[in-house]
Amino acid sequence: MSALYGVDETHDPALRSWVESANDPACEFPIQNLPFGRFREAADLDWRIGVAIGDQVLELRRIGLINHAEMNRLMRLKPETRLELRRALSAGLRAGSGQQARWRDALLPMARVQLGLPCQIGDYTDFYVGIHHATTVGKLFRPDQPLLPNYKWVPIGYHGRASTIGVSGQDFVRPMGQVMAAGAEAPQLMPSQRLDFELELGIFIGRPNAQGQAIPIEQAEEHVFGLALFNDWSARDLQAWEYQPLGPFLSKNFASTVSPWMVTMEALAPFRRAFERPAGDPPPLPYLDSAAQRAQGAIDVDLEVRLQTAAMRAAGQPAVCISRSNYADAAYWTVAQLVSHHSVNGCSLSNGDLLGTGTLSGPRPDQAGSLLELSAGGRTPITLPNGEQRRFLEDGDSVELHGRCERAGYRAIGFGACRATVLPAASTVANETD
Amino acid sequence: MSALYGVDETHDPALRSWVESANDPACEFPIQNLPFGRFREAADLDWRIGVAIGDQVLELRRIGLINHAEMNRLMRLKPETRLELRRALSAGLRAGSGQQARWRDALLPMARVQLGLPCQIGDYTDFYVGIHHATTVGKLFRPDQPLLPNYKWVPIGYHGRASTIGVSGQDFVRPMGQVMAAGAEAPQLMPSQRLDFELELGIFIGRPNAQGQAIPIEQAEEHVFGLALFNDWSARDLQAWEYQPLGPFLSKNFASTVSPWMVTMEALAPFRRAFERPAGDPPPLPYLDSAAQRAQGAIDVDLEVRLQTAAMRAAGQPAVCISRSNYADAAYWTVAQLVSHHSVNGCSLSNGDLLGTGTLSGPRPDQAGSLLELSAGGRTPITLPNGEQRRFLEDGDSVELHGRCERAGYRAIGFGACRATVLPAASTVANETD
Repeated sequence: MSALYGVDETHDPALRSWVESANDPACEFPIQNLPFGRFREAADLDWRIGVAIGDQVLELRRIGLINHAEMNRLMRLKPETRLELRRALSAGLRAGSGQQARWRDALLPMARVQLGLPCQIGDYTDFYVGIHHATTVGKLFRPDQPLLPNYKWVPIGYHGRASTIGVSGQDFVRPMGQVMAAGAEAPQLMPSQRLDFELELGIFIGRPNAQGQAIPIEQAEEHVFGLALFNDWSARDLQAWEYQPLGPFLSKNFASTVSPWMVTMEALAPFRRAFERPAGDPPPLPYLDSAAQRAQGAIDVDLEVRLQTAAMRAAGQPAVCISRSNYADAAYWTVAQLVSHHSVNGCSLSNGDLLGTGTLSGPRPDQAGSLLELSAGGRTPITLPNGEQRRFLEDGDSVELHGRCERAGYRAIGFGACRATVLPAASTVANETD
Repeated sequence: MSALYGVDETHDPALRSWVESANDPACEFPIQNLPFGRFREAADLDWRIGVAIGDQVLELRRIGLINHAEMNRLMRLKPETRLELRRALSAGLRAGSGQQARWRDALLPMARVQLGLPCQIGDYTDFYVGIHHATTVGKLFRPDQPLLPNYKWVPIGYHGRASTIGVSGQDFVRPMGQVMAAGAEAPQLMPSQRLDFELELGIFIGRPNAQGQAIPIEQAEEHVFGLALFNDWSARDLQAWEYQPLGPFLSKNFASTVSPWMVTMEALAPFRRAFERPAGDPPPLPYLDSAAQRAQGAIDVDLEVRLQTAAMRAAGQPAVCISRSNYADAAYWTVAQLVSHHSVNGCSLSNGDLLGTGTLSGPRPDQAGSLLELSAGGRTPITLPNGEQRRFLEDGDSVELHGRCERAGYRAIGFGACRATVLPAASTVANETD
């Protein structure tokens, strides 16, 4: 693994770009990052492949490093080839590069383009790697046994809906659904009263495996292209009523939001961490274990959730932070473990598949990745700086996820924002005339 | 609904085709059926759209009724346009038609072509409409409460894996996975010992809805193109260990098999039945109820499961019937109810989506749609005519699903076969050297 995604000259913190905005210390897209996304200049034009640099987007085909505009095709490249591409981008964007005159024509201000889903998404799987999330939520239902017996053995996951995944900036209507009130004899169709966000990372699969052929853990990261922020919106009241015995369905599939930039595994190389289980926990089964995983299976990403209510927006107030967490602290399973587990039964992962990590709550209550946790199941609302309170999301609320990798001796890199806004529920479809 | 998919002259049992094999009373594809599928003459050629007639495939573009070869595009047609297409096909294939000379050139023997997945599948959702299945399986886990409280209110469903759906004729390897033996302290990675089939129908979505816009039940069938046979292979031992709390995952996503022909809603019109709930059951919520649904929401399809073991194949013995069931008798929810429920929260259904019904077991034990039920959870094996016994599937077993609609006064139509074979598990991927 370390051979695949090692630290090299592209991570040198002294590197500066001729794109001046990239050198601002607050910029999330310095020359050490170089994430990939899709953009277009107008809704009737085709998506193109871009690389974020400072406040600009570099159009990849235009500089001649690739000869097509299909992100999914680019994501299939072998890791060695991707590494070459990264090195060429880094060299060409470096201050003093001879490419500057030519590449400048391939830059567009990010503020002037539309950013799309990072790729054409194949199947979407959501995992449940956040052990603090699983424990806290489990306690709400099973105070005496918060974690089920399989949790430390099986990377729990389930399939989700790919067609309703949107990109940052989307609005979605509050879902309608069946709600069974406590003590009621029958459920009612109504707008969800317990709408929530889930702070996750999304893992994009680049290289597929053939059906029937499991991916050994040593090769698992070769199949991964990069990470993005991911919000798996959840309607807790619909979920509570519908989810037995086959899992979440309408409570999750109305909308999910992903950030537009895929931060590559290459860019994340300096931010790897040892991955160790707490003493006393069972060791992973051999197909989920490797020396490389133990040495640096974790990825250190600081995460943040910000909320802006309609009242705040009207008053010109920016979103406020309501939770901070960290991927490496939150996750019980690594990226490679998820990929190996997903394929151990012969399941074929496809180019463009998206794996959600599950909610990445930290160990402390204020590090929770959902309102369900922050409000203790809706019992104790959180209070915002303007005095508003929230147990769950209200119409007009915008939720923004942020992610940032920092480490001494390296230039910090960021993920951009993953933002979406809740619209009021559509009027009921119930058929009154029949 | 009856206006959409009514009985007309294309269902006249007296109709005969100039394709002589279609007039054989045992033929599943008479002129009254006209199902759609994709075929090609060699693996390196593109898929084309075909209509099954007798033992032949009629290439649709070649006869000029459409000017492209994209099944998904055809499936988006409005129901009125699809009805026109059906009428034109019926007229042209009728004995004495003036098209005979020209259309004959567009026929290919079905035995000489490769049949593909009927369309490019979008998202795949599996439902759980078989109330006898849910009750029998529930009893194995909860003798005192076989049906969970939500069952008669919520059409229970969950998302599945689209990338591993194959077409009839496929082989797949027995899945590896974590199995927790009774009394064991740790799970083990091993080939599934409780591999099973599930007798289902697949519902293909033709017309999408926009995200945020629920589909009213009166319009639900407009979004449906047709039905096919569907086998949702299941590894019961993996499922038992992994499925809490988020539902089935690796126990289901290694393979599913669909039959190559989509029998259209138009073709099924004569086989509609009243849909009535047992006395004492709660009425469906208004968004799941309509007069048309009550009058003819059900579809009468006789279903059959056949098994051929490796020993039978070696001895030249054909597959034997191990279960018979009927869709209308098995299902607690109609096609329209599934579509409306799936979208009530604003979830967008896409062109090419596949909805599995769930296992369609009849009320009697010998009508079960899975070995889990037929063998009472693996306790009492079934005995085959050659003396072999089965609790669950063994390597080399082929399972074949069949479906047939019959009604007095109408020509019977069939679904073709949905067949697949279990191969031995791949060698373990466990990493022993690390």
